[in-house]
Amino acid sequence: MNIVVAGLGIIGGSMAKAIKKYTDNRVLGINRSKKPLEQALGCGAIDEIADTSALTDCDMLIMGMYPDAAVEFVRANADRINKNCIVIDTSGIKSEICPKMTELAREHGFTFVGFHPMAGKEVNGFESSEADLFLGANAIILPCEADDSAVATVAALASKIGFGTVVYTTPEEHDRMIAFTSQLPHVIACGYVFSPCCRKHKGFSGGSYRDVSRVANINAELWSELFINNGKPLVSEIDTFISSLEKIRNSIEKGDRAELTQLLQDARNVKEELGE
Amino acid sequence: MNIVVAGLGIIGGSMAKAIKKYTDNRVLGINRSKKPLEQALGCGAIDEIADTSALTDCDMLIMGMYPDAAVEFVRANADRINKNCIVIDTSGIKSEICPKMTELAREHGFTFVGFHPMAGKEVNGFESSEADLFLGANAIILPCEADDSAVATVAALASKIGFGTVVYTTPEEHDRMIAFTSQLPHVIACGYVFSPCCRKHKGFSGGSYRDVSRVANINAELWSELFINNGKPLVSEIDTFISSLEKIRNSIEKGDRAELTQLLQDARNVKEELGE
Repeated sequence: MNIVVAGLGIIGGSMAKAIKKYTDNRVLGINRSKKPLEQALGCGAIDEIADTSALTDCDMLIMGMYPDAAVEFVRANADRINKNCIVIDTSGIKSEICPKMTELAREHGFTFVGFHPMAGKEVNGFESSEADLFLGANAIILPCEADDSAVATVAALASKIGFGTVVYTTPEEHDRMIAFTSQLPHVIACGYVFSPCCRKHKGFSGGSYRDVSRVANINAELWSELFINNGKPLVSEIDTFISSLEKIRNSIEKGDRAELTQLLQDARNVKEELGE
Repeated sequence: MNIVVAGLGIIGGSMAKAIKKYTDNRVLGINRSKKPLEQALGCGAIDEIADTSALTDCDMLIMGMYPDAAVEFVRANADRINKNCIVIDTSGIKSEICPKMTELAREHGFTFVGFHPMAGKEVNGFESSEADLFLGANAIILPCEADDSAVATVAALASKIGFGTVVYTTPEEHDRMIAFTSQLPHVIACGYVFSPCCRKHKGFSGGSYRDVSRVANINAELWSELFINNGKPLVSEIDTFISSLEKIRNSIEKGDRAELTQLLQDARNVKEELGE
């Protein structure tokens, strides 16, 4: 396949590197700024620096841009995209993105498949990309209106470049689950480091501090877009979480050892039932 | 030194193993139940199974029990403890424990030094102990009324068995910091897994889920004691955290992208200033 990766940040860059490392496909890179393109060409993550004219001859277009920018790019170039091309996005929210992409696909004849690689790091940019970023990670595929063969092509590529489990879902279910599994932990990390104790933590902290605060090293531009585009499910998860915190808080304040022990045991039971 | 470790759980067991691995001291074990003693003797974590008569001839007594049980044990055996002995506890809260231990030390002539190894795992018991659990971890020493030479002996042992940084503090400062660095992350993990989404997370989760939920696999008996004994600082940290969450939540609900971006950037700045 001729694969165009548009947007060579950490995710697009890692996709390009992984495809070159684990498959025989040809990879072309498109990016707003020049430096990541030159780095990608230099290290063999792409075979060629391309522009949008490459879209007329491509079999797969992987969007590595921020969600809104990805839709804008596909809209602006929809006429040029090869009708046999499978377009996938890689963004962290789907209810806002997938219907727009699906409509563009329907109007212009190409195929759209939503894709969310559940991997990342608390650093950004092509410099942080890795061929092995996806090893063992979950891949979420949102078939939307794509036919089975296009979906199978995306799933096969995901397996080849190292993803562990592939799951299939709808944009709505995806966004409800992601609000909990990914967005809420980012909200938690940011809220956590606002404590006045945080700046004095060194010498007093261990693995718990490190783990809960890790993703506070956040890309503020990207995540504010993701949070607001998934506002309803995320606000609902935050509210559920605050109620749970208040239950634990109140049993501590009352000094009710039996109630508190039961609450903590309930939490442990959830983890044990999940085999974690 | 003749060192008695009383309470061979994950912390006491790891202390015994580390002392045997990295020093030439003799280690004797005391434990309520027999099995950990036999395991410890079998794997060389202790040189001998002991009873409280060993306290008359010991140079250091390391308490690996739960906080209240540790105080009770020292109180019940205070008459037998060698007057040259340094007693250290290893518990996660200090304002409740250190004054009681210091008073017992003053009355009976031995020395007490508070000690908190900032290492642990989300599993318990001697089976989970490791000689290298403390490698690079922070050791917090609470000198209380001990003289400099006793404090230096504890610090030297901590360095020998692998701790990275040693910090010195008071029980009150310790408990305020620990409420933030260790207890709040445990409260967060437990509150987090109460979301109805948690049981369905597989396939939709990545590193953020894993990190924030890890310590929900909690020892409910131990941590309910720790939380309630450190109620005031902990409730205050939970309240600070909930206010921070609400700020982020409200900017998402309003869809105020500029305000939300600023909040997330503020969080990132804290991490960056800390060099993390």
